[in-house]
Amino acid sequence: MDVNKKYFSNLSSRERAIFEGGITMGALFHQFVGTPFNKKNVSSLEKAIEESFQLQPAIEKVEVSIDLGMLDQSMTEFQYTSLTGDMLDVKIYSRVDDALAVIRIKFVEELNYPLMFVEDIQ
Amino acid sequence: MDVNKKYFSNLSSRERAIFEGGITMGALFHQFVGTPFNKKNVSSLEKAIEESFQLQPAIEKVEVSIDLGMLDQSMTEFQYTSLTGDMLDVKIYSRVDDALAVIRIKFVEELNYPLMFVEDIQ
Amino acid sequence: MDVNKKYFSNLSSRERAIFEGGITMGALFHQFVGTPFNKKNVSSLEKAIEESFQLQPAIEKVEVSIDLGMLDQSMTEFQYTSLTGDMLDVKIYSRVDDALAVIRIKFVEELNYPLMFVEDIQ
Amino acid sequence: MDVNKKYFSNLSSRERAIFEGGITMGALFHQFVGTPFNKKNVSSLEKAIEESFQLQPAIEKVEVSIDLGMLDQSMTEFQYTSLTGDMLDVKIYSRVDDALAVIRIKFVEELNYPLMFVEDIQ
Repeated sequence: MDVNKKYFSNLSSRERAIFEGGITMGALFHQFVGTPFNKKNVSSLEKAIEESFQLQPAIEKVEVSIDLGMLDQSMTEFQYTSLTGDMLDVKIYSRVDDALAVIRIKFVEELNYPLMFVEDIQ
Repeated sequence: MDVNKKYFSNLSSRERAIFEGGITMGALFHQFVGTPFNKKNVSSLEKAIEESFQLQPAIEKVEVSIDLGMLDQSMTEFQYTSLTGDMLDVKIYSRVDDALAVIRIKFVEELNYPLMFVEDIQ
Repeated sequence: MDVNKKYFSNLSSRERAIFEGGITMGALFHQFVGTPFNKKNVSSLEKAIEESFQLQPAIEKVEVSIDLGMLDQSMTEFQYTSLTGDMLDVKIYSRVDDALAVIRIKFVEELNYPLMFVEDIQ
Repeated sequence: MDVNKKYFSNLSSRERAIFEGGITMGALFHQFVGTPFNKKNVSSLEKAIEESFQLQPAIEKVEVSIDLGMLDQSMTEFQYTSLTGDMLDVKIYSRVDDALAVIRIKFVEELNYPLMFVEDIQ
């Protein structure tokens, strides 16, 4: 079966890059929010997030940076905290043919919300 | 702040409907996969999934149907199982201005994969 | 196979009630943290949490109350927020033979931490 | 505040080791089930799981092994699959004072269920 022909012929390459990138950003957020972390394991957590979501269709690269300033604010008596969406700064590069979409999540203070948007699209 | 102007002026209404619907489908999958269920609680689980993800930006409606045939196959000695992506049949209606995208996930046997795609777009 | 004899003969009924209740509390937290909610869907979310984790071994009852005061504090521009562990007030009743353990999670301000503990054990 | 005195004086060291180990096993399962993986990223995923849940109270060590045989069976057209509980083989070492509990999850075919139990307790 040609999955592209059967299921994706209603989208342009640009639209599909946006679609697949959006899926992966939503997925990444809801998979990893809640994970225990502190400064010791933040690198292995960032790496695991990057490597797991790079496997999804159309995803070329994932760059994850967890905000350690917010870690300090939410630190508990037990010397770790739970990952929240507000701490995530992530870029997902999604390519379909010639179209490359860069999907971003970052915390926007005015919205009090970790916003997902298309940072760049070619 | 006009969030649409600042963050989404690089997308058409159609593209943004696709983007927001994709985010929500990826999110829904990774939030709820793993939840314990059987025939007794399947309705309350479907309802909770629908009502929570209807809150996300641009989402008009979410329709969730969990495949009870697959429940039978994966039933355990303890009379329940964990929700997997393969059991999900979901439609998400995402609207931005005039554009309405219907995002679907369903298990595609030939791919052995729960495929997310744009079922309809106007 | 007698699963109790094979796998749980090293625990007293009291110990197993504590064990199963602890499992379910850890599970519940990490399954549902991140779910989008506001006042509209909080009831269906509480109900889904209760009904899904009541299915686990030894669990008699689950009572979930989400803190709406904390919802207000974390409200976003998009009129919903993500569930965090700090918002959870949950009691899990775990019974094995004569032993009944009541496992609780509640936010403890002095610890800045949603603490899981055995509130009552008979 | 002495958290042990205030919240845990109703448990013996042995009981608390069982409790904390149970919490962490339930948490680990529901946090990571659903994560995309294949042979390429399985090591970074195992490491991230180990390092994140070692942070929880009383946890000395976490050993995670994901069953690659089951990966092959569930492989999709897109060359990865989603982590399920059935693929997990995990040992959690939980210590409180003199008491050391080894909590295990492994798939038990006769039960068609990934069973959590106390493998060793001293």
